[in-house]
Amino acid sequence: MRQIVECIPNFSEGRRAEVIDQIVSAIKSVPGAVLLDRESDPNHNRSVVTFVASPDRAVDAAIAAAKKASELIDLNKHAGEHPRMGATDVIPFVPISGVTMDDCIALARACGERMWSELDIPVYLYEKAATRPDRENLANLRKGQFEGIRDDIATSEARRPDFGEPRVHPTAGITAVGARPPLIAYNVNLGTPDVEVANKIARAVRHQSGGLRYVKALGFELKDRGIVQVSMNMVNYEGTPLFRAFEMIKREAERYGVPVVGSEIVGLVPQHALNAVADFYLHLENFSEDQILEHKLAAAMEEAEA
Amino acid sequence: MRQIVECIPNFSEGRRAEVIDQIVSAIKSVPGAVLLDRESDPNHNRSVVTFVASPDRAVDAAIAAAKKASELIDLNKHAGEHPRMGATDVIPFVPISGVTMDDCIALARACGERMWSELDIPVYLYEKAATRPDRENLANLRKGQFEGIRDDIATSEARRPDFGEPRVHPTAGITAVGARPPLIAYNVNLGTPDVEVANKIARAVRHQSGGLRYVKALGFELKDRGIVQVSMNMVNYEGTPLFRAFEMIKREAERYGVPVVGSEIVGLVPQHALNAVADFYLHLENFSEDQILEHKLAAAMEEAEA
Repeated sequence: MRQIVECIPNFSEGRRAEVIDQIVSAIKSVPGAVLLDRESDPNHNRSVVTFVASPDRAVDAAIAAAKKASELIDLNKHAGEHPRMGATDVIPFVPISGVTMDDCIALARACGERMWSELDIPVYLYEKAATRPDRENLANLRKGQFEGIRDDIATSEARRPDFGEPRVHPTAGITAVGARPPLIAYNVNLGTPDVEVANKIARAVRHQSGGLRYVKALGFELKDRGIVQVSMNMVNYEGTPLFRAFEMIKREAERYGVPVVGSEIVGLVPQHALNAVADFYLHLENFSEDQILEHKLAAAMEEAEA
Repeated sequence: MRQIVECIPNFSEGRRAEVIDQIVSAIKSVPGAVLLDRESDPNHNRSVVTFVASPDRAVDAAIAAAKKASELIDLNKHAGEHPRMGATDVIPFVPISGVTMDDCIALARACGERMWSELDIPVYLYEKAATRPDRENLANLRKGQFEGIRDDIATSEARRPDFGEPRVHPTAGITAVGARPPLIAYNVNLGTPDVEVANKIARAVRHQSGGLRYVKALGFELKDRGIVQVSMNMVNYEGTPLFRAFEMIKREAERYGVPVVGSEIVGLVPQHALNAVADFYLHLENFSEDQILEHKLAAAMEEAEA
C-alpha cells in the first residue's frame, strides 16, 4: 500500500493572497508533495493549507512552508479574530494510508527539531505527539497568544518549549507541531428556529460537558433557513463514529419535539468513515472493505504493475 | 479519469481446475487485462471469472478466453446443475469508471461479431445490448439449453442469433454477450426459523411479482443458524439502492413480528453503492463524492503526474 501522510499547516495570514501563494509554492517545490486544498479567511486573518506526501517528504514540505512563512509574516503586525502564536501556527501530521499514528508522532518530532535547528523557531508538541497531558489540547498551549507567550516563556516552567530555547522567534513566534487522526467537520440541522435547543443538544453530545469522547460541539442559528444547527468536530471518527453522534442528536431532539432535517459534512471525509455508516445501518455481517470493487481493483492493479 | 470496464465471463466447466487455469492465463496474456476473481462450482460445473481492462483491450481478453474455452470444453460431454448453452456461456461488459453503458453495448457488439468471425460461435446479445425485449432476460435465451437450441435454432425465427448463422458450434454451442450495470449480491437475514416468511417477503420485494424494479429475490433457510434469508440480486443499484430494499424488507418483516438480524454483501460492491447508504441514513445535504479524501487524493495525484 502506498504510504501517505496528510499535513494541514495553518498560517497567520488570510488577507495577502501573494503571501499564501509563495507558501503554497514552497510546498509544491518539494517533489512528491501534492496540494489538496487551501482556504484563507480574511476575518480570521488565517489560512489553512492541506497537502499529502510520502512520510519521507512530508517534513521537508512542512519545513519549506514554515521557512517561507517566517520570511513573509510578522506577528507583531498581525491582527485577526482567530487566536495565534506563530507565523506558522500549527502543523499537524495525519496518517492516511500505510502509516501509523506512531509514524506521525515521529514525523512531528523530526519536524519540531528542524523548526528550531534550521529556522530558529521554538516548538510545542501537541495532541498525540504531546509530551504532557496539558499539551494535548491546542487551546491550552495558545493561551495568551503570541504576545502572552513572548512575555512569559522565559520565566514559566509550564511554557517551556519541547524544542528550542525558552524564547519566541521575534517575528515568527512559536509553532505547535503534532499528530492527530483525520478530523471531520460534521453538522446536524434541526427543524426549529430556537437556538437554545441546539445549544442544549450540543452540550449533551460533546465530550467537554459529559458527552461522546471524540466530539466537540456548538449550537448555531442558520438564520436564512429559520433553523438551527449542532456543529461538530469529530476529532477521532473511529473512536466516535458519525452515526453514533447523529443518532444521539436525533434522540435528544425528539425529547424537544424537534425533527432532524438533515446533516452535512464540511470539507473532506475519509471513505472509511462513510463505510462505517453503511455498515451500521444495514446491520452488515462479516463485511470487509476488501469487498469494495475499487479496493480490489487498486490492489490488483498495484500487483499487476509490481 | 482512468477508463475501466469489468467483464465477468462464465464458463461451462467447474471441475477441471487445469481448464480454468488455461482460460485465466489466456486473459492474463492480454496486456492491461487484470484478473480480479475466479470462482468454480463443481455442482454447477461452472466457473465465473472477473477481470477488468481498458475498453480497447476488454474484447481482446474476452475473445482470448472464449477461444481457449472452445478448445477445451465440449458441451456434448458437460453436465451440471446450472443451465448452460455455451462453453463460454455469457460475457457481460460492465461500466466501472470513465465509460458509459453505451460504450459497453458497443463492446458487446464488437465482441459478438468477433466470436462468430474468429471462433465460429454464434452470439445472442442480451440485457442492455439486447436487440429485442424478449432477449433482455438471459433466462429466456437459455431455455432448452445447448441441446434445445441446437435442435431448434435452424427453424425457429425467435432463436435466430444476433451474430452468425443459425447453427450452434458443434462443441462450444452459442454464447450470450451483453452489457449491464454492476450486480450486487445482497442478503437480508431474518430472526425466524420459518422459511415461509422469507418466501413471502421475497415475493413482496422482487420485481417479478410486483416489487422493486431492479431486485431479484428468493427465500432461503440458513439451517445451521436456525434463521432464514431473503437472498437478492440487485441488478441496478442506482435504480434500486441497497437501503430501499433493506428498509422494505424490515417493514414487511415487522408485519410478521420478525426482526432483521443482519444483512450481507456477497462478493464485490461498488463504493458508490455504500456511499448512497451513508447519504440516505445521515440525511446528508449537498454531499458530493468529491469530498471523500481518497477521491480528492486520487484526482490530485493524477493531476500531479500528468
